[in-house]
Amino acid sequence: MTTPLGPLGDLPADEMRAALHRMADWVADYRETLEGRRIVPEVSPGEVTAGLSPTMPAVAEALPVILRDLDHIVMPGVVHWGHPAFLGYFGSTSNGPALLGEIAAAALNVSAMTWRTSPAATELETVVLSWIRELVGLPASFMGIVYDTASVAVLHALAAAREEALSQVRGRGLAGRTDIPVLRVYASDQAHSSLEKAAIVLGIGQDNVVRISSDARHRMDMAALAAAIARDRAEGMLPLAVVATAGTTTSAAVDPLPAIAALCARESIWLHVDAAYGGAIGALPEGRALLDGMERADSLVVNPHKWLFVPLDFSALYTRRAEALRRVFSLVPEYLRGAASSDAGGTDRGAAIDYMDYGIQLGRRFRALKAWMVLRAFGREGITSRIREHCRLAQAVAERVGREPDFAMATPVSMSIACFRYEPAGVSHESADRLNAAIVAAVNASGAGYLTHSTLDGRTVMRMGFGNVLTTEAHLDTVWRHVVAESRRLGATHGD
Amino acid sequence: MTTPLGPLGDLPADEMRAALHRMADWVADYRETLEGRRIVPEVSPGEVTAGLSPTMPAVAEALPVILRDLDHIVMPGVVHWGHPAFLGYFGSTSNGPALLGEIAAAALNVSAMTWRTSPAATELETVVLSWIRELVGLPASFMGIVYDTASVAVLHALAAAREEALSQVRGRGLAGRTDIPVLRVYASDQAHSSLEKAAIVLGIGQDNVVRISSDARHRMDMAALAAAIARDRAEGMLPLAVVATAGTTTSAAVDPLPAIAALCARESIWLHVDAAYGGAIGALPEGRALLDGMERADSLVVNPHKWLFVPLDFSALYTRRAEALRRVFSLVPEYLRGAASSDAGGTDRGAAIDYMDYGIQLGRRFRALKAWMVLRAFGREGITSRIREHCRLAQAVAERVGREPDFAMATPVSMSIACFRYEPAGVSHESADRLNAAIVAAVNASGAGYLTHSTLDGRTVMRMGFGNVLTTEAHLDTVWRHVVAESRRLGATHGD
Repeated sequence: MTTPLGPLGDLPADEMRAALHRMADWVADYRETLEGRRIVPEVSPGEVTAGLSPTMPAVAEALPVILRDLDHIVMPGVVHWGHPAFLGYFGSTSNGPALLGEIAAAALNVSAMTWRTSPAATELETVVLSWIRELVGLPASFMGIVYDTASVAVLHALAAAREEALSQVRGRGLAGRTDIPVLRVYASDQAHSSLEKAAIVLGIGQDNVVRISSDARHRMDMAALAAAIARDRAEGMLPLAVVATAGTTTSAAVDPLPAIAALCARESIWLHVDAAYGGAIGALPEGRALLDGMERADSLVVNPHKWLFVPLDFSALYTRRAEALRRVFSLVPEYLRGAASSDAGGTDRGAAIDYMDYGIQLGRRFRALKAWMVLRAFGREGITSRIREHCRLAQAVAERVGREPDFAMATPVSMSIACFRYEPAGVSHESADRLNAAIVAAVNASGAGYLTHSTLDGRTVMRMGFGNVLTTEAHLDTVWRHVVAESRRLGATHGD
Repeated sequence: MTTPLGPLGDLPADEMRAALHRMADWVADYRETLEGRRIVPEVSPGEVTAGLSPTMPAVAEALPVILRDLDHIVMPGVVHWGHPAFLGYFGSTSNGPALLGEIAAAALNVSAMTWRTSPAATELETVVLSWIRELVGLPASFMGIVYDTASVAVLHALAAAREEALSQVRGRGLAGRTDIPVLRVYASDQAHSSLEKAAIVLGIGQDNVVRISSDARHRMDMAALAAAIARDRAEGMLPLAVVATAGTTTSAAVDPLPAIAALCARESIWLHVDAAYGGAIGALPEGRALLDGMERADSLVVNPHKWLFVPLDFSALYTRRAEALRRVFSLVPEYLRGAASSDAGGTDRGAAIDYMDYGIQLGRRFRALKAWMVLRAFGREGITSRIREHCRLAQAVAERVGREPDFAMATPVSMSIACFRYEPAGVSHESADRLNAAIVAAVNASGAGYLTHSTLDGRTVMRMGFGNVLTTEAHLDTVWRHVVAESRRLGATHGD
């Protein structure tokens, strides 16, 4: 592994094999030592850059030199999202089988744009999407497609909604038209901000994302939603879509899907359900009821890279209106015509779908492979037992909060998310806000645990989310000890 | 490697290490046997699916079973994009160092959304983007960002153009406004269809993508462009952007960038340059002149996953108007506020960029790692020598075409793309169109070579593109022999 690349080909076969084995050990070592690492590195902006050459090397460098720099320059700047005490965001989702799938997909490096250019990637995508659909409890009338992220998925969903609601938008656009009213999209004040990005891109406008107030449990207020829609209609605006959330980012709240679905049906409004995180709860028999009504959605996104143990990136959009999605995005250029499955004489179109007809991207990685390996290696039972354990760990946070003076849950635990707050007597709400943020920062700075803060009911709260198969109650205990210690320490100096 | 996953954790460490080594051998075996495989599998739609379980397994399956199915069910349905005789599209870009980078990035599974959540991924992205910028010859005034594909990059570029040209689009959108004219985007009739998808999504409309005729060398006709802009202005429409192509998909033609840039500057129109494939030619001193004028673009996309040996996906957008991009896409939600680098007290913003502020996606893989490994392992000399060799191979196609009766180049070779046509005497143009498409289909069906067909000047042509470091003249010879043999065979039966 000391020879640089051959004059024009690739690494010689024996060196490539040796390098792959060396990398296998690197990965195995990484996973074995992960728990002993600081989660957040002690690194300042510019520090990684300072170790890197500002210019590209003129001539080939040997792999051992590059791998040494990986260890000595890159790794000291890595936040270890896969550490079992990393309880930020929605937790890391990688694991052994997932990694093997990533490696195989990288080796194949195919693009799943059409069936013809990628029969296996296309069919595996369809099969895996049907497994996930069934796992979360969606009916077979939903067609799926894999995108990279939920932000891209909601963009596609709203593009389809726009196409369904308005004529000739695909061709004529929205600009300069007097026949198109202001478009409105509704979501609770707890919904993910990716919706705003989609509205901006689609020409709907950020101001036309109507944030509906939520109730005491952070669920969209139905009366407020109905009133907003009525008011907008009265003003001549067009209610285009409601984005309901099943598992909000801060507290895993679930909007009242049956009522929203009924309203959307009555009003002929597209219903998109953001179940990017929460969709996974449908895998539990006891969790399925939380998602009641989702089967009436026009589209729904679930991110296996959030809570179904598939690594970044893998977001699944399901829709009952696949033809609308296809009407927006199908454009087969001549140089792909021969590759399009619709030209595969006598071929049943359903069996040979060209996923590029349903989305923006033409270059599409073989993402289904890692998902297929994860779902098989875990099995339904393995997936559900881990999701159940994550929910139990969130409840275990609530128990600890209940036992600790000056701590209180900010809202009851939902799914695998626990939001709580430290508010010692004699400290104002505002001061406690700063204190809670400071506690999170201090715990994270310790390197031993990681959590995030967020805002709930106008107050700053601490938040733990569980999603890593390596996380046990012992890891929770470690993070919790740091939270309590930092609370006491910082609380003592954070008077008004 | 026979025990299923532990009850709640991951694979035991020793089994994971063994599985990684087994996968290392799988990858090494794949690369060593790649050349002996049929490029296109003999598989019918539904055949892969038939081998897969229609439902997800109830309980965990052992890895050896899954890996056996990978070999026996999935692999027989794979098109081997990395085969050195695969000359379709823009060629495969994977290689040894790239694969090692993919593996390391998969093991880390970080999300490069903010500097704080990913210092190393963020800084490596910035460094690698500056290497690539310098390699292709863009000035330092261009800021870069990595997206997945050029389709997503042009969507972002046109969103920024829309923001620069019109006030309050981000907030108010385009719908229902009487103060916004019809928006027009211009591109040659050779430009990539991803532009249409972007125009559809952004509310510009497919009909408002004005396809400008191209000259005999398939370059945008300046007089036609100027006339179209003047006509649109006279009709009260707003010329929003010109998308010039540096390396068209079919024939690698380069639009007259200096003239287009001058026109755009005079007219205050955003200039986006699609150099997704062609940008790489800027790495050659003798190729740089082809891209003259690109430095005056407002935005430019180059895809290292096309011709800079970085595997799918990795698309780099550069812009001189990064603030416009940021104005469209920056939305820092509360739960990320603590992670935003702008809050890192005293931090210089430039050193701690949050890439999520410049794009739709929040979940962002550590794509820079593979690019960094490729660029170092090849070095500038290694990159340029391979690009030069690919250009030479395209010229070698032209030599073979010149020696073969009834074959003619459809257009002179540009960069690493050769387009040619078989048109035996006594065969009508229309019949020859069908014949050329049939030859391509027959060569591809042989499994020994792969090329694509396209349309140039209204006629069907055969097209070979070079981009794989494993491709040598011997591979070209193999494909060429099949092309000639199929031409003779099919030509004999394709009379009018």
